[in-house]
Amino acid sequence: MDEDEALRRLYADFDAAGMQPLWRVREGLMPDRPTPRAVPHAWHWKDLYPLARRAGDLVPVGRGGERRAIALGNPGLGGEPFTTPTLWAAVQYLGPQEVAPDHRHSQSAFRFVLEGEGVWTVVDGDPVAMRRGDLLLTPGMAFHGHHNTRDAPMAWLDGLDIPIAGYLDAQFFEFGPDDVVDRSTPATSRSERLWGRPGLRPIGGPEPKASSPLCAYRWEFTDAALADQLALEAEGRPSTVEPGHAAVRFSNPATGGDALVTMRTEMHRLAAGCTTTGRREVGSSVWQVFDGAGAFVLDGHRTEVRRGDVVAVPSWCHVVVEAAEPFDLFRFSDAPIIERLNLARTQLDGGNS
Amino acid sequence: MDEDEALRRLYADFDAAGMQPLWRVREGLMPDRPTPRAVPHAWHWKDLYPLARRAGDLVPVGRGGERRAIALGNPGLGGEPFTTPTLWAAVQYLGPQEVAPDHRHSQSAFRFVLEGEGVWTVVDGDPVAMRRGDLLLTPGMAFHGHHNTRDAPMAWLDGLDIPIAGYLDAQFFEFGPDDVVDRSTPATSRSERLWGRPGLRPIGGPEPKASSPLCAYRWEFTDAALADQLALEAEGRPSTVEPGHAAVRFSNPATGGDALVTMRTEMHRLAAGCTTTGRREVGSSVWQVFDGAGAFVLDGHRTEVRRGDVVAVPSWCHVVVEAAEPFDLFRFSDAPIIERLNLARTQLDGGNS
Amino acid sequence: MDEDEALRRLYADFDAAGMQPLWRVREGLMPDRPTPRAVPHAWHWKDLYPLARRAGDLVPVGRGGERRAIALGNPGLGGEPFTTPTLWAAVQYLGPQEVAPDHRHSQSAFRFVLEGEGVWTVVDGDPVAMRRGDLLLTPGMAFHGHHNTRDAPMAWLDGLDIPIAGYLDAQFFEFGPDDVVDRSTPATSRSERLWGRPGLRPIGGPEPKASSPLCAYRWEFTDAALADQLALEAEGRPSTVEPGHAAVRFSNPATGGDALVTMRTEMHRLAAGCTTTGRREVGSSVWQVFDGAGAFVLDGHRTEVRRGDVVAVPSWCHVVVEAAEPFDLFRFSDAPIIERLNLARTQLDGGNS
Amino acid sequence: MDEDEALRRLYADFDAAGMQPLWRVREGLMPDRPTPRAVPHAWHWKDLYPLARRAGDLVPVGRGGERRAIALGNPGLGGEPFTTPTLWAAVQYLGPQEVAPDHRHSQSAFRFVLEGEGVWTVVDGDPVAMRRGDLLLTPGMAFHGHHNTRDAPMAWLDGLDIPIAGYLDAQFFEFGPDDVVDRSTPATSRSERLWGRPGLRPIGGPEPKASSPLCAYRWEFTDAALADQLALEAEGRPSTVEPGHAAVRFSNPATGGDALVTMRTEMHRLAAGCTTTGRREVGSSVWQVFDGAGAFVLDGHRTEVRRGDVVAVPSWCHVVVEAAEPFDLFRFSDAPIIERLNLARTQLDGGNS
Repeated sequence: MDEDEALRRLYADFDAAGMQPLWRVREGLMPDRPTPRAVPHAWHWKDLYPLARRAGDLVPVGRGGERRAIALGNPGLGGEPFTTPTLWAAVQYLGPQEVAPDHRHSQSAFRFVLEGEGVWTVVDGDPVAMRRGDLLLTPGMAFHGHHNTRDAPMAWLDGLDIPIAGYLDAQFFEFGPDDVVDRSTPATSRSERLWGRPGLRPIGGPEPKASSPLCAYRWEFTDAALADQLALEAEGRPSTVEPGHAAVRFSNPATGGDALVTMRTEMHRLAAGCTTTGRREVGSSVWQVFDGAGAFVLDGHRTEVRRGDVVAVPSWCHVVVEAAEPFDLFRFSDAPIIERLNLARTQLDGGNS
Repeated sequence: MDEDEALRRLYADFDAAGMQPLWRVREGLMPDRPTPRAVPHAWHWKDLYPLARRAGDLVPVGRGGERRAIALGNPGLGGEPFTTPTLWAAVQYLGPQEVAPDHRHSQSAFRFVLEGEGVWTVVDGDPVAMRRGDLLLTPGMAFHGHHNTRDAPMAWLDGLDIPIAGYLDAQFFEFGPDDVVDRSTPATSRSERLWGRPGLRPIGGPEPKASSPLCAYRWEFTDAALADQLALEAEGRPSTVEPGHAAVRFSNPATGGDALVTMRTEMHRLAAGCTTTGRREVGSSVWQVFDGAGAFVLDGHRTEVRRGDVVAVPSWCHVVVEAAEPFDLFRFSDAPIIERLNLARTQLDGGNS
Repeated sequence: MDEDEALRRLYADFDAAGMQPLWRVREGLMPDRPTPRAVPHAWHWKDLYPLARRAGDLVPVGRGGERRAIALGNPGLGGEPFTTPTLWAAVQYLGPQEVAPDHRHSQSAFRFVLEGEGVWTVVDGDPVAMRRGDLLLTPGMAFHGHHNTRDAPMAWLDGLDIPIAGYLDAQFFEFGPDDVVDRSTPATSRSERLWGRPGLRPIGGPEPKASSPLCAYRWEFTDAALADQLALEAEGRPSTVEPGHAAVRFSNPATGGDALVTMRTEMHRLAAGCTTTGRREVGSSVWQVFDGAGAFVLDGHRTEVRRGDVVAVPSWCHVVVEAAEPFDLFRFSDAPIIERLNLARTQLDGGNS
Repeated sequence: MDEDEALRRLYADFDAAGMQPLWRVREGLMPDRPTPRAVPHAWHWKDLYPLARRAGDLVPVGRGGERRAIALGNPGLGGEPFTTPTLWAAVQYLGPQEVAPDHRHSQSAFRFVLEGEGVWTVVDGDPVAMRRGDLLLTPGMAFHGHHNTRDAPMAWLDGLDIPIAGYLDAQFFEFGPDDVVDRSTPATSRSERLWGRPGLRPIGGPEPKASSPLCAYRWEFTDAALADQLALEAEGRPSTVEPGHAAVRFSNPATGGDALVTMRTEMHRLAAGCTTTGRREVGSSVWQVFDGAGAFVLDGHRTEVRRGDVVAVPSWCHVVVEAAEPFDLFRFSDAPIIERLNLARTQLDGGNS
């Protein structure tokens, strides 16, 4: 038997034994730098919202399907309903007086509200009002349902760690009652009453778990914090990420760390005319324009975006954001995972960090 | 030589060699339970304030003496100007238009404001307004000076870790300019503008150090947090330390831990008629009545207190607090030291924890 | 247009927009409990080793392919060369006098030696002898090459986090020299000379990074630790995981945590006749029999295994291990990832934890 | 009344009220840099040991006195039996067949053995052999007694945190049985059998507490670690604190931190002729010469020392150590306290860190 034949047989035997030689796949498996399947992509609100509304007309929300949420599937991911390999972003739509039934799951979730109000999300029995600009948390294994108290529909952005929970085979799911467990509609949730004052930690009450015990981050505070950073910059004080670029991270007041264990959530404000320093980062992220207009330049390709548009940024993609006018952006990412696994790396144009 | 004589000589020789036999001092050095030299003690505002005012009339504030602060020396500590072995509490008084010059030191400090307003404390160049009910921080090695912008005097409680810094021989002190470095009088400090929104962490700006980057905890938030705890309790929700007893800890928003490394700071509110469960704790504390009236029962001795009165509680002293009417109390303690050194122990009447 | 048609159009439009409705995939995406694609599987050393040896005869090791490592691909993973979704296990084979060239990558690796000796792995310039029973680490971004100093081949188990680094798009790879950078063959590596004494931490020398600064865990210590646990159990002292079941975790002496950030590594010893309590855990693992013989019962299916056999255990698979004779097993898992992301859950037969 | 009289009256009234004006004591309380009462001091073994032996002849060991330990009182501390403000160092002496009865206390302790063997210290029921060069731990609240199995006396150095436990009023003490609870004399303690292999962490067995679960650090390992550091230095590898100066810290294998919460313990080896870089540190320390001869230069004053001599170094004292010959030194300090309270500061000759 010649060597070629011997080799052919060897590879056939590897195959039969379920073995794969590294040397034939090394470059693909261990590339010089990340080679994401996910691609940079933008979805526009003018397309997303009408589809969500049509679903509202045609598809009831209820037990089984659980939520009228429509995921933004990254075109590079071969039909998986994931916005990046680790992140699920979806538009959720709740019609007038509708109820999304109570359930809980190991996946962590948040809602970020682009517009509207009138829905309460009831998190472990705590009714949390949803209003434009608010970030609302549903940590893993917290029961939750939503109900719309108004005669107008409401839509918002859902972010979940469904992909990584699936990748790690760590999913658990349980149904709760068909209705929300508390139909009261307080302006302020119990979580805010206990944990929502700056730097004040309750000594009694329930012990906080791994995620933030504060379940609502209100726009009035986010807005004021971003405005103050730009004002302080104007006063000559170090306060911003870079000139004209203010940003806050939503954090767990019990630890100072990320509000959720598996997803980082941030709000950015760019002054009109600001262009961010180009950067690459290990890990993927998703942005939604909250207000204003501008553009993303992703690996050199420029896309204009405005209110409601959603942008997926794969790992190690080169990102520049340009603000045509005052520009507010919500961002979430898998940075806490990357950092906890000691895989973080960032490259800034004109330097490294 | 008989044995007694030999023993006598041995002890003399120990003495000459600077040696001390444990067996002659063991019970004193290693008692069954804490035997503090400090004693439970109360100082009354009706005595403290007039003395502070007289000092204001007679003693200028300025370089060298640095501050018109009058310490409350625990009667058990043999003339040391310390309120407990680890804690310094003093009344500081600043006359109309007066300035306490800029300096810094390794000792950490806070100010708690019983009444009045018009003084700004300038902490590392950041002017911080002082108003009734506010807690203002001066972490170790932060430059700071105070100036009174009004024609009325102002007095407040100073808390410092002077005793433990001295015990550990860890004191450093530097003079700054004779005047405060910024005479502007903003209602809101830069530290609040950067770190004062609930759960929002600036991504840019200066990296926080060991102590809280938030230097002012405003009464409006503290008051609301305490009110909400009692309201939640009335709604049947777990929220308080015990029935009728609300409490918050002033925390570092960057870590969730104590606002200062060496001193715990808290605000307590007791509903009228509330009596706290008796407890002993390792570590000492100092309380100041912020509002209302009631009593402390310390190792069985009852003392009535009202607005401004200060109470020292030694380690392992049995404490009960009684609220004759709605009762607000500020408390600071050396708990972070005790906990970091793994020496914490608490005993509750009717149980242990 | 009737409703069915409207719905058909809606789904077509979703499709065109790259959107996916949750309600049609919810059960698959968010199942009641983990539904791993990976399956329980065993590979037998009597099959693996001959294939590795044939590769040694036919395939040179060198630049590009880098390593003569043959991965054990889980039959459930559709041809991916991964043993579980997160873990790569491979047999690496190095012929007489062969060299595996120097390189580094963000993926972390270890070698566990089933038999033989004579190879040195040179980790960041530190030659580390490989001998039966040893665990040798190659933390992420450490340069490393291997060379065989003998005239006999040597084979061992490689474990890497290639799948998760790929999933997270966090791969970086760099070539080093074609030869190992130090051909000396000390019995003891520098890492052991600095960090290899129990509880002794060097005050000088390089600062440890995220992974263990100790790169070699020698069999003599592992063996003695396991023997002592069983001996202590026989003396009536709490020391084992459960009766007859001793186990150690390979840990980072600088932190006490896992030796590697992304993979937990352990050695288990079962006394003859011991049957472990059945358990399910979130997260996947891979076992290799180091010595003795016994069986795995995975989701009720029993497989007999002996020296060198490798077993893949998917997430939430029910596992029982039976020892027919004294039974030593090496195990690695993704537990550090699961724990850091707050997704851990364990279910023991007859109870929960 | 003139101003002087008013002032005199004010100070008298302050006095009566237990108040102390800061401005009259500020320089003493808040000096520019530490002004320790403790002084640099050396005790010589040739003086210490004979006194301990005489005590052995004259003073029985037993219940009440508990230990035949003779403390080294710092001459600056006014008769307090403390070696520095935070540290207690004593010579403990146990005659032939004597027993030091079982007890426990919140104070943490260690024994460092200058010479001899034959004593077992029984720590929470675990008999731990004491031999030359060993460091043996007795964490706070662990029951312990000692017994001498030989017909020769044995003496060693005791280190405790008695002063700080006293300063913080955190002392608890309980008697155990009059005899040690286990008279067996194994060469190796159970703590070593569970925790004494490098990097191997038992998965079962008792959960470690705040202090090290490893209670004995054996000289053979310490010696080898120090020898290897100097050998690695000779091979051109970074390994030592500074040229000719090897050092290890005794650490908690469960955390990588200090073996005891309140005291740092270290072993230093200086090559013959080595002179350490002068340094000042916040916090105090105590050294004992284990072998060899050399000198300490403390704030410029030079003292020659040899085997067994003990040296006290106050906070911020300038320290240089000179090795006349190969020089081994044990050191303990309050560094963990200083570091945990964020008070650390070091000044090296020719630089800062």
